[in-house]
Amino acid sequence: MSAKVGVIMGSKSDWETMKLACDVLDELEIPYEKKVVSAHRTPDLMFEYAETAAARGLKVIIAGAGGAAHLPGMVAAKTILPVIGVPVQSRALNGLDSLLSIVQMPGGIPVATVAIGNAGATNAGLLAAQMLGAFDSQLQERAQARRDRIQREVLESSDAL
Amino acid sequence: MSAKVGVIMGSKSDWETMKLACDVLDELEIPYEKKVVSAHRTPDLMFEYAETAAARGLKVIIAGAGGAAHLPGMVAAKTILPVIGVPVQSRALNGLDSLLSIVQMPGGIPVATVAIGNAGATNAGLLAAQMLGAFDSQLQERAQARRDRIQREVLESSDAL
Amino acid sequence: MSAKVGVIMGSKSDWETMKLACDVLDELEIPYEKKVVSAHRTPDLMFEYAETAAARGLKVIIAGAGGAAHLPGMVAAKTILPVIGVPVQSRALNGLDSLLSIVQMPGGIPVATVAIGNAGATNAGLLAAQMLGAFDSQLQERAQARRDRIQREVLESSDAL
Amino acid sequence: MSAKVGVIMGSKSDWETMKLACDVLDELEIPYEKKVVSAHRTPDLMFEYAETAAARGLKVIIAGAGGAAHLPGMVAAKTILPVIGVPVQSRALNGLDSLLSIVQMPGGIPVATVAIGNAGATNAGLLAAQMLGAFDSQLQERAQARRDRIQREVLESSDAL
Amino acid sequence: MSAKVGVIMGSKSDWETMKLACDVLDELEIPYEKKVVSAHRTPDLMFEYAETAAARGLKVIIAGAGGAAHLPGMVAAKTILPVIGVPVQSRALNGLDSLLSIVQMPGGIPVATVAIGNAGATNAGLLAAQMLGAFDSQLQERAQARRDRIQREVLESSDAL
Amino acid sequence: MSAKVGVIMGSKSDWETMKLACDVLDELEIPYEKKVVSAHRTPDLMFEYAETAAARGLKVIIAGAGGAAHLPGMVAAKTILPVIGVPVQSRALNGLDSLLSIVQMPGGIPVATVAIGNAGATNAGLLAAQMLGAFDSQLQERAQARRDRIQREVLESSDAL
Amino acid sequence: MSAKVGVIMGSKSDWETMKLACDVLDELEIPYEKKVVSAHRTPDLMFEYAETAAARGLKVIIAGAGGAAHLPGMVAAKTILPVIGVPVQSRALNGLDSLLSIVQMPGGIPVATVAIGNAGATNAGLLAAQMLGAFDSQLQERAQARRDRIQREVLESSDAL
Amino acid sequence: MSAKVGVIMGSKSDWETMKLACDVLDELEIPYEKKVVSAHRTPDLMFEYAETAAARGLKVIIAGAGGAAHLPGMVAAKTILPVIGVPVQSRALNGLDSLLSIVQMPGGIPVATVAIGNAGATNAGLLAAQMLGAFDSQLQERAQARRDRIQREVLESSDAL
Repeated sequence: MSAKVGVIMGSKSDWETMKLACDVLDELEIPYEKKVVSAHRTPDLMFEYAETAAARGLKVIIAGAGGAAHLPGMVAAKTILPVIGVPVQSRALNGLDSLLSIVQMPGGIPVATVAIGNAGATNAGLLAAQMLGAFDSQLQERAQARRDRIQREVLESSDAL
Repeated sequence: MSAKVGVIMGSKSDWETMKLACDVLDELEIPYEKKVVSAHRTPDLMFEYAETAAARGLKVIIAGAGGAAHLPGMVAAKTILPVIGVPVQSRALNGLDSLLSIVQMPGGIPVATVAIGNAGATNAGLLAAQMLGAFDSQLQERAQARRDRIQREVLESSDAL
Repeated sequence: MSAKVGVIMGSKSDWETMKLACDVLDELEIPYEKKVVSAHRTPDLMFEYAETAAARGLKVIIAGAGGAAHLPGMVAAKTILPVIGVPVQSRALNGLDSLLSIVQMPGGIPVATVAIGNAGATNAGLLAAQMLGAFDSQLQERAQARRDRIQREVLESSDAL
Repeated sequence: MSAKVGVIMGSKSDWETMKLACDVLDELEIPYEKKVVSAHRTPDLMFEYAETAAARGLKVIIAGAGGAAHLPGMVAAKTILPVIGVPVQSRALNGLDSLLSIVQMPGGIPVATVAIGNAGATNAGLLAAQMLGAFDSQLQERAQARRDRIQREVLESSDAL
Repeated sequence: MSAKVGVIMGSKSDWETMKLACDVLDELEIPYEKKVVSAHRTPDLMFEYAETAAARGLKVIIAGAGGAAHLPGMVAAKTILPVIGVPVQSRALNGLDSLLSIVQMPGGIPVATVAIGNAGATNAGLLAAQMLGAFDSQLQERAQARRDRIQREVLESSDAL
Repeated sequence: MSAKVGVIMGSKSDWETMKLACDVLDELEIPYEKKVVSAHRTPDLMFEYAETAAARGLKVIIAGAGGAAHLPGMVAAKTILPVIGVPVQSRALNGLDSLLSIVQMPGGIPVATVAIGNAGATNAGLLAAQMLGAFDSQLQERAQARRDRIQREVLESSDAL
Repeated sequence: MSAKVGVIMGSKSDWETMKLACDVLDELEIPYEKKVVSAHRTPDLMFEYAETAAARGLKVIIAGAGGAAHLPGMVAAKTILPVIGVPVQSRALNGLDSLLSIVQMPGGIPVATVAIGNAGATNAGLLAAQMLGAFDSQLQERAQARRDRIQREVLESSDAL
Repeated sequence: MSAKVGVIMGSKSDWETMKLACDVLDELEIPYEKKVVSAHRTPDLMFEYAETAAARGLKVIIAGAGGAAHLPGMVAAKTILPVIGVPVQSRALNGLDSLLSIVQMPGGIPVATVAIGNAGATNAGLLAAQMLGAFDSQLQERAQARRDRIQREVLESSDAL
């Protein structure tokens, strides 16, 4: 089945974080593709990727980057698909630079920004699932079932205090 | 036609900002409903709103709030629909508190966060349109046409320097 | 004796921090209950917990959470009991997000916020003791005695320089 | 009836903010006293105020200060009563300095910190009411009635959008 | 004489700031061109502008933008010419977001970042002049003469205290 | 010879940092005394220490503390001697809270604040030496000689690159 | 009588702030000189000023500057006199940049930093007075009398609430 | 061949970072000199270095420093050559102090600031190369070739996900 979600990241070193988004997509049986696409080091590839995304059948793009993180916003500028931005935790400023570079987009080109680091990557996968799930009741049910399972785990975790 | 997007805000004073999201939805002919729903002052209404949102036919919820902004995250916890969070600019900390309260969600419950203030509200409307547009080619074309128009305006604006 | 203080936390991983609040309550002989209650993953449990707290005889609630920390504020929205919020140190932003999410509550629903991390958890236990102690002179004396002991330890610590 | 709450502030200029705490106490019929007490300019008065507070019948102290805001923490060090700290919005750093100076207390001496500025002052009054209300069911009912009234106002405010 | 410096900005509203860079270039008799080029709203124009800059005879590019300011970094990714980035003061975060989005570039693609706002725009013009002046002794002398004049003004300004 | 400088700190755990101030005083042959004095845990001792400092012959006080660091400012409020404040690096906020709590004193009561952590402690010792040295030419010469020695070390350090 | 304190500032526009330091020196009858000395625009004057300060009879230097505020630290590097640094409130970052540029000096060269803006300038004057007063009992008495007067004003200010 | 670029740093401990700038200069065959020059500990050497830089044939200076990082700005004040500033990551504030001390220069004296830490040092070398390359087509080609090589590495890195 052809990919519904594109997962891209600015550097191979972002994979440790972005893998968590892919884990969620795997778990919820959502077909996706993944690729290193750097806004600054492969700008033409980035534009080509964004321009052809809709035609290739993608419905959502997840883009992770750190520091002066331009990848999510620039991809968003080149596609009409919704783009989810994951601020990867940076070395000096702990991802505050990544977050502000991704979320503070000017009016006209939105990026759906999630939390810094691992929690954000997991939630990027879930957010993509919920976007698709609004038009796919079976997927929505799988996403809901995942929530229900985690809820049960929380309920049981009090016993371990 | 029944509402596809729910626009809620924590306080009537947020309307000045959130109106910009509604302006975009109007412009792109997306049916929506709007309501003041406060996480802290009307918590039961909030839960009821979120619980019934999918059944009422909503596909996306846009929630704006400022300061310790819990509305987007709590609504997200109570619905499987995608939730877009708009950090309203706060008085003392200029919306940095709103932003962190909305975006730093734990793994499991995502909020699609946009920029602080007016640009964020406009982009919340556009992001909702792009999510819906991924499954509605006519809407996607209207969203693209809006982009094209703004692009032309930018291209012409150099003449005024 | 029935619990006077409820100690809740958003995740089992917060226990390492929140244990320090319980240690103080144990030391000052204040009966308490403890539980994992997640604003985002178990929202209904959270509401039920808060709604029934006063009737169950609790006089104060201590709630710890990290990141977009909504637990203290949402519990405060659902109970007329005083709520003490402990900002748990988060990974990327060191608890600054937790602090702002807890302390910047809108007018109407207060949360009594303490310091980020371990010192805050200890102080949450002491603050609960001092609230109760204002109406329980024996408890107040035990709290004062704890202070006196620590004061003596500080006075003696100069010798070790 | 003798004062149950002491409201103090570091400077006469803090009154504009701290008045909101007194408004709540007036509204909820809680007897209180108010005074300018500066940690840095009247340190002996501050110590005397704190030392005699419990004996004078106070049950809670609300202390507001800005900048290097030492008043709440120092009063807390000199009384076993619970102390609520209000970070007054400062000129250069918008109250972030006030907030950190008040909330980041070391283990041993808690300060119940509320939001920066006006919302915080209002909530300081409410928090004091809730602490007292836990042992005074009539006051608790008045505090609950105030919440109920505000909830109705929010519910009706949607009509004005 | 053909332009040696390209001055671009993300929005017409940045002109108020960026005009100060042009004022310096005028004053030091450096030929330049100016244009509104938006990373997000005219991405293709941006790439074309950057790709052709060197061939058109430009030696330096000055790019100003605010918020999630991607223009300087993306232009830098598409040209081997040195790029000077001016962080325009943003509404909510006062240009801290602009600064971090511009300066925190990953290894490989530098942006020569100057101060937030007006001082930065003036200095962008001077930095361009100094880069060119290192290979143009007459220009270097004009830049030095400007410094000397300002030094005299400072020396005389003490009389007005 | 009686102590000219008093070195105090809020907790024994601050000694690791504050020892560096004492090392400088030892090196420059300035008699000093050192003591743990906690603003929050030994407030009366703090006041007594500050009140008697001038009469005991001290000329300067160095006070180190972390978090909501009230020691330097409160000592300064109780003595007319100059007080040097050292912001000790705190766990969650890396000393930013310590710095703001110490430096942002209101008009009327100054604290001479130095850098966060070890560099600040060393500089506190040097600043005390320079204050005293302005009235003690032999001490001033020793302080100058220390600078000259360090200057030579820097000049030689290039060889090791 | 020859000047004991040198008051310098990086720009004539800093005078509005630095005048408050001079007001205190006037009030306490401390002879001083004042001058605009810019680290960046008159670096040679700055070095000459600092090098000759001790020989001219100065005992303390007060230096105010904003933004990348290098004046206090560079003057401190060129004189063995104690230097007090006043962070002038900057436009974009409200003086946080000024504060960090002044206070975060490396080990070896201290700057006695005071608060951002007006309160800091007043306190710079007082700190100079207290440094001199440690060796001039009449001046120390005048400084103490000023404190006593302000204390009385605070005590009386409660009546106006 | 005589040095075209001067690489200086405030302390030998900055070499670990600044070495990366030299690595780039080596790789691109740009002759350079390197030296420890401290603004605060060797101020006269710093001025002499800056004053003679142009006459010695340098075209660009790269200056790295941490904390209250005055070296880049002060060198810039004493030479008409373009100066690139590298904010070295500091211990307590992770380089935010270094960044603001370097980038927030007043109008008149620019510093071309790059990212905090290692990425910044690498980019300082590249920025110097691009400045020189604008007037040296062979160097420009080598810089472009380096980019092309890195682009290929990114393109291939997707295979390793």
